Amino acid sequence: MRKQKYAKESLITMTEMVLPNDTNTLNNLMGGRLMHLMDIAAAIAAQKHCNRIVVTASVDNITFTEPIALGDVITIKAQVTRAFNSSMEVYLEVEAENIPSERKKATNKAFFTFVAVDQLGNPINVPEVVPETEQEIQLYESALRRRQLRLILAGRMKPNDAAELKALFNQD
Amino acid sequence: MRKQKYAKESLITMTEMVLPNDTNTLNNLMGGRLMHLMDIAAAIAAQKHCNRIVVTASVDNITFTEPIALGDVITIKAQVTRAFNSSMEVYLEVEAENIPSERKKATNKAFFTFVAVDQLGNPINVPEVVPETEQEIQLYESALRRRQLRLILAGRMKPNDAAELKALFNQD
Amino acid sequence: MRKQKYAKESLITMTEMVLPNDTNTLNNLMGGRLMHLMDIAAAIAAQKHCNRIVVTASVDNITFTEPIALGDVITIKAQVTRAFNSSMEVYLEVEAENIPSERKKATNKAFFTFVAVDQLGNPINVPEVVPETEQEIQLYESALRRRQLRLILAGRMKPNDAAELKALFNQD
Amino acid sequence: MRKQKYAKESLITMTEMVLPNDTNTLNNLMGGRLMHLMDIAAAIAAQKHCNRIVVTASVDNITFTEPIALGDVITIKAQVTRAFNSSMEVYLEVEAENIPSERKKATNKAFFTFVAVDQLGNPINVPEVVPETEQEIQLYESALRRRQLRLILAGRMKPNDAAELKALFNQD
Amino acid sequence: MRKQKYAKESLITMTEMVLPNDTNTLNNLMGGRLMHLMDIAAAIAAQKHCNRIVVTASVDNITFTEPIALGDVITIKAQVTRAFNSSMEVYLEVEAENIPSERKKATNKAFFTFVAVDQLGNPINVPEVVPETEQEIQLYESALRRRQLRLILAGRMKPNDAAELKALFNQD
Amino acid sequence: MRKQKYAKESLITMTEMVLPNDTNTLNNLMGGRLMHLMDIAAAIAAQKHCNRIVVTASVDNITFTEPIALGDVITIKAQVTRAFNSSMEVYLEVEAENIPSERKKATNKAFFTFVAVDQLGNPINVPEVVPETEQEIQLYESALRRRQLRLILAGRMKPNDAAELKALFNQD
Repeated sequence: MRKQKYAKESLITMTEMVLPNDTNTLNNLMGGRLMHLMDIAAAIAAQKHCNRIVVTASVDNITFTEPIALGDVITIKAQVTRAFNSSMEVYLEVEAENIPSERKKATNKAFFTFVAVDQLGNPINVPEVVPETEQEIQLYESALRRRQLRLILAGRMKPNDAAELKALFNQD
Repeated sequence: MRKQKYAKESLITMTEMVLPNDTNTLNNLMGGRLMHLMDIAAAIAAQKHCNRIVVTASVDNITFTEPIALGDVITIKAQVTRAFNSSMEVYLEVEAENIPSERKKATNKAFFTFVAVDQLGNPINVPEVVPETEQEIQLYESALRRRQLRLILAGRMKPNDAAELKALFNQD
Repeated sequence: MRKQKYAKESLITMTEMVLPNDTNTLNNLMGGRLMHLMDIAAAIAAQKHCNRIVVTASVDNITFTEPIALGDVITIKAQVTRAFNSSMEVYLEVEAENIPSERKKATNKAFFTFVAVDQLGNPINVPEVVPETEQEIQLYESALRRRQLRLILAGRMKPNDAAELKALFNQD
Repeated sequence: MRKQKYAKESLITMTEMVLPNDTNTLNNLMGGRLMHLMDIAAAIAAQKHCNRIVVTASVDNITFTEPIALGDVITIKAQVTRAFNSSMEVYLEVEAENIPSERKKATNKAFFTFVAVDQLGNPINVPEVVPETEQEIQLYESALRRRQLRLILAGRMKPNDAAELKALFNQD
Repeated sequence: MRKQKYAKESLITMTEMVLPNDTNTLNNLMGGRLMHLMDIAAAIAAQKHCNRIVVTASVDNITFTEPIALGDVITIKAQVTRAFNSSMEVYLEVEAENIPSERKKATNKAFFTFVAVDQLGNPINVPEVVPETEQEIQLYESALRRRQLRLILAGRMKPNDAAELKALFNQD
Repeated sequence: MRKQKYAKESLITMTEMVLPNDTNTLNNLMGGRLMHLMDIAAAIAAQKHCNRIVVTASVDNITFTEPIALGDVITIKAQVTRAFNSSMEVYLEVEAENIPSERKKATNKAFFTFVAVDQLGNPINVPEVVPETEQEIQLYESALRRRQLRLILAGRMKPNDAAELKALFNQD
């Protein structure tokens, strides 16, 4: 039987301060630099779930709505939501805080997918995820729908075959 | 009347060599580092279109299928596909080449969206895009569908209202 | 009356992956790079306690006993132990984990001291620390002794005047 | 008989300019970045003494009293003071200069300890240090006292057994 | 017979944005950082010509006349002009653009020379360059004169033996 | 009368260790990274001579003959040789040492030219250089010839007008 691990065992927190070289001419954090940090945080969470080398397989749509300023503190929380054979979906929440003014805001949510590989780069199976809290269960269940969307967007599934996703477009 | 610019006026090419600090323990480029470079390339293309400061608004789903090795040369081409008021969609193609072995591969395609802002960070209108080649026209037209998907995924449009996208799920 | 804050309100966790440029010729993390990360983590904890700009005032003796390898994941926990007028002592615990082999080890403990300053760099008072757990209370109480040692080492107190510290050397 | 080398043979000078990414929101050099540079300078001095790979073993208490501004030039001098079997104590002096205003100040003094290791990371003996100048002799002799303090702080010696150090606390 | 390649096959374009850490206290790009980027661009062009590992052999006189500001976009074009046994001369043109103000200026022209080497670092022959356009032919022909100057400056040729170069100093 | 300063007052020494990100796929220091370090070292020497902000004006031909390996220690010595109105020529000597094997080699000599500027970037006069040692005098005198070559190469002097340089090509 396949090994099982609790979702929470993969949770990691990364805290970073926005430095000058991370910013654009408005002195705000560049989106690409944030994605770079998110990718490292998500990779660590995926590694903790499977105890293997992991490589980024895909990133779902990310929206940047709030500017994050030079000197702000970023907190990235990353946790595995569900595993499919050799791949793992990781959910991330990013928060930015201007500490002197005590202004804290949730800035981003994102889903990254990683594949576990051996030393030669070949995919290998990972443990199943056991969700416990209500949010973990909700993320576990909706993972299937997000996966269908990823496969469609990557041209590896036809929209008509995406049962879960299709339902979304035919609601009353 | 709103100003117009040809799509090709925004085309830029970025060439980079993969350095040790960009790589994971398999000596392959980390996905997050590639997204960082893509964000800078796309920002330059968007800037060239609107001659304004731009900030990253969103990144569409990106798939990483091919490992890119230490020492490989990455070529990123970025060009604006379409503008909507203050936002611009940028299309990117990434190619990686192992020059000694002459192995070259298309590794990624992606869409980034940027918003033009003034010095205070407030959105301002940008010129319209005039597509010319067949690919430019195809990218211009499909930009509407991608925009609907972005709005749905960001929770700012109901799936049922996304006419263009919905059609995709009800084909025979 | 001076403002008070719980010790735990300043707790932060920083998670980092050891990258090639952080390592020496044995492929192990350089001590100086670790201190750089510890300084940033401790500064964020101190900032959270006082909601002010903070500058590093001193670092107590740090011992490096365990090598940390390329690709390992470092977890730094930092929390303020006690405040003295404008200065705050921060306690750090560093843990390193080689995730594929599941080997995790406590590698460092350290004390950094920060001073809260205004925009001109002048020191300003900070809230008092209220310790709650047994460890927080023990760290709060021993902070006085460490402070005396710091003052002696900085040549700002005579050894004979360091009552708390002196007791240590005259135990039976 | 054990090999001997003059203290001065290990002297090195490192000169650096403070760049934007090294600074905090007051545009002053961050303490952690300075320690990073000091660690590299001290490692080079230790390497010159023993012609071996060296790893940081410990850092003594460091005090930061003077802000160092963006654009300032830092000069770090590092020299081995004394060797104990496989370990070497390195003394550092840091000076910062604002060249346009000709303001130069001594900002830090510090002691780092390194251990010489072979390719597998095992400690190996290093040459003895031969001090020549008055300062070199004074640093050589006081090295024993600092070593006792390090061992006590690391919990590897009881305060009562630190004869040299204890004397300091019982002076009239 | 020796292999031949067209000059244009080695053309590459590198686009970069000037970031805070690249600048001096006037917020202008430092000359040394620009040379670092030029070296990478030129190395990629040389690699494309010979499909081998290449190492920098020399850099000709470079003049910096125009300041390039923080946030400007730099475009570096690099192309091989001529090959001599194992060495290749690369011609670079650098352009900087302040996109919001639409000010674009040609800032530098330079010649870098690279040597193709095998895995042990030994020089190996490279294909001949076939120039096609008028500029390519002109650069191909003048390469001999620049090579003589390089050899003289490196002390490996006597001025009197540099026929092509000498002619330059005896024109009427 | 114009202010005078001894050549030696500008001497600075920079010591650096070659880190992974500085190297190419042969694990040797990239030429561009070395030029980056040389530019910073030379700028500091020029600043020390004139106590002003300085900007790189030109770099003379540099030859790279010796590979410098990962982990090697680089020592760069920079000193002003002569001043002309607002410009200063800086002479650099680079040495690389593989400390474990005690192999040390002189790897590069170079001349960088800097211009002193005020806060608006306008050139301002600098003190004259007073050479003392034989080498300083020789470098001071030959500076005129190198300056003529720079002007010719920059297209700002006709070869026939370069009296000093021309003599070189008409020796018997």
